[in-house]
Amino acid sequence: MKLSQRALTIQASPIRKLAPLMVEARRRGLAIHHLNIGQPDIATPAAYWEALKHYQDPVLSYGPSDGLPDLKQAIVAYFSRYGIGIEPGDVLVTTGGSEAISFAFAAVADFGGEVIVPEPFYTNYNGFATLAGLTVVPVTTRAEDGFRLPPLEDFEAAITPRTRAILVCSPNNPTGTIFTRDELEGLARLARKHDLFLIGDEVYKEFTYEGAAHTSLLQLEGMSDRVIVVDSISKRFSACGARVGALISRNRDVMDAVLKFGQARLCPPTAEQVGAIAAYRMDPSYFDPIRAEYQARRDTLLAGLTASPGVLLRKPQGAFYMIVKLPVRDTDDFARWLLTDWQMDGETVMVAPGDGFYATPGLGGDEIRVAYVLERDKLERAAKILLEGMNAYLSAGAGARSVEAGNLTSCR
Amino acid sequence: MKLSQRALTIQASPIRKLAPLMVEARRRGLAIHHLNIGQPDIATPAAYWEALKHYQDPVLSYGPSDGLPDLKQAIVAYFSRYGIGIEPGDVLVTTGGSEAISFAFAAVADFGGEVIVPEPFYTNYNGFATLAGLTVVPVTTRAEDGFRLPPLEDFEAAITPRTRAILVCSPNNPTGTIFTRDELEGLARLARKHDLFLIGDEVYKEFTYEGAAHTSLLQLEGMSDRVIVVDSISKRFSACGARVGALISRNRDVMDAVLKFGQARLCPPTAEQVGAIAAYRMDPSYFDPIRAEYQARRDTLLAGLTASPGVLLRKPQGAFYMIVKLPVRDTDDFARWLLTDWQMDGETVMVAPGDGFYATPGLGGDEIRVAYVLERDKLERAAKILLEGMNAYLSAGAGARSVEAGNLTSCR
Repeated sequence: MKLSQRALTIQASPIRKLAPLMVEARRRGLAIHHLNIGQPDIATPAAYWEALKHYQDPVLSYGPSDGLPDLKQAIVAYFSRYGIGIEPGDVLVTTGGSEAISFAFAAVADFGGEVIVPEPFYTNYNGFATLAGLTVVPVTTRAEDGFRLPPLEDFEAAITPRTRAILVCSPNNPTGTIFTRDELEGLARLARKHDLFLIGDEVYKEFTYEGAAHTSLLQLEGMSDRVIVVDSISKRFSACGARVGALISRNRDVMDAVLKFGQARLCPPTAEQVGAIAAYRMDPSYFDPIRAEYQARRDTLLAGLTASPGVLLRKPQGAFYMIVKLPVRDTDDFARWLLTDWQMDGETVMVAPGDGFYATPGLGGDEIRVAYVLERDKLERAAKILLEGMNAYLSAGAGARSVEAGNLTSCR
Repeated sequence: MKLSQRALTIQASPIRKLAPLMVEARRRGLAIHHLNIGQPDIATPAAYWEALKHYQDPVLSYGPSDGLPDLKQAIVAYFSRYGIGIEPGDVLVTTGGSEAISFAFAAVADFGGEVIVPEPFYTNYNGFATLAGLTVVPVTTRAEDGFRLPPLEDFEAAITPRTRAILVCSPNNPTGTIFTRDELEGLARLARKHDLFLIGDEVYKEFTYEGAAHTSLLQLEGMSDRVIVVDSISKRFSACGARVGALISRNRDVMDAVLKFGQARLCPPTAEQVGAIAAYRMDPSYFDPIRAEYQARRDTLLAGLTASPGVLLRKPQGAFYMIVKLPVRDTDDFARWLLTDWQMDGETVMVAPGDGFYATPGLGGDEIRVAYVLERDKLERAAKILLEGMNAYLSAGAGARSVEAGNLTSCR
């Protein structure tokens, strides 16, 4: 049976494709430190669980396609704390941020359409684009520049008649960079000049370190018609398994269209939305210790990894990921090897190979993405296992790349 | 800002598009009987709630993209009760049956592809098709024939080089017809002859009345490579708001592809799957009183509606819907009028206009779909309000169509 082209060409998630090797390693009795996936170990708020566990209705029924009204109201109130004025009609509750990305893509582009994304980028954008029939057109950001946005000319060079939007993730997954208001204003000018949408993936909004400020696309002037923001409670409230997110736009035509997309799939999970309402109503001070904890974890992981020569990385300002360059030719092979051939006292680590975060062929092959979502002692241990594994892998032969001195400066 | 063609052309759900008028009617103090949506009032099983409310993990984390292993195992065990042998690898847990339909469409067809569906059909197939860039090609079934499948020649005439699959829903939403093994074998022959997939929406499997037997596409011989079944707990366990469904196929290439689709969206709701496991593990006798209750409701609604001359309908064998033909020219207008201009002692009814269930222009305009998911006394009352409303609407003028005698025989 012939499958569709999109079925044949969609990428396996580089974050999840090594799962079978991980299962096999576990079967052999290994303990695995997960640096590969942004699954926080922070407890989901008690308020969330209380609401879920006291759900009263005996029938778990469909909710409105655009989400429970109280949740929409809670999201509006949450944004107002950031000085961002939106109305309930600007919000569609989605089944995770994932669905918000899918809906945004489908709303702005048809088959053959293009969306420009700074790379490295959250690899699942590829999957959503393939499913929706779009192409992700990359504009490369570089570790040497702190993964800041390249000059606007680079974006302009990527624009074609098929371009419908620029998608930017800030705080960035996988680089941890927070784009400045100036950088975003530049993209806004470009969007106006070329009549494009500007899509913002802002699900890591709370996770900014050392006082770094996050600018939302919703704060840009004169962009009401062009901005679509993708949001989610997954990381915000450590509730990844809830599958509750939101698509936010002040463009009424966009909201009318995504409501129809939403009607087709009926509604997001009902009881989980009730949990989300309670979480959104918590005092914002909830985030303070969590932010401090992530910052400390970042520093722990940085200290652990930069201990090794040839390992190159930048201190991220936000989110909980970093891109790490290794003196290894093929990090895909290395990541597999860590699961199949390596252990230290019955432990190993799982990392996400870097090439999956790039659309430009050949980039990222010597990089990995690591997530710092484990306790500090575990991170310290994971870094040690990773580095020792790398040295063993390199000693074993094949995997080394020649490190060009000065190609990238370590952050410390 | 120019939106995509799919954003501009996707239909508003005919089941949900009247929601704003409903909200407005409620604001005016009216009580509304919902015949428009298949939202059962049966309590979600206690086992489901127990499992959800005793969820132990303090972190609501991502699950596997293909679903929790215990849920896949429970689904396999459930099918084995029907003598249907499948393995966990044949199952992908989805975010509701909705996502399973989307994934099935995307797996078998690319943009411009066609899927043949007997009409009237579950109207949201249109939405999923538009989003995926496919066209639903209808083959008309007729009330006069009990909405049975038309001759295979009708299907064959609809096949083009772009046809990739035939989708059949049994027990059928919206007609209640259960297709026989012979009918399905016919479609299977056609699928083999023209190298097509056969997609089965079988979410109403338990709801069969007077001993009518349901045949699953998974029971057909020699079709392992071609059959994809869409399943869901929404109606089975009265858990519509859980958003837990499944895509089932013995074709390994299909399962590999949909797993990648699934990886892009990470996972279905985690805690809701834990509830689903408990529900699936209940004794099958759970369904007996529920089946009896729906059968009694069907009979109540039939009795209530056939009391009126000019109202034409068939006794459905399964699911919990019926298509009802009214002596009204435009049921879309009539359905709106019921919410804006009609009431009986402070009550009115909401129905789904029939034209949304057809892809052939002009069909269904004198039909409505009603769901019998309310208690019998409420159904009786709703039928009365609907018929009185219809008479008032017709007396008011514009809305009558000329009833052709013998065009359709009433079932009783």
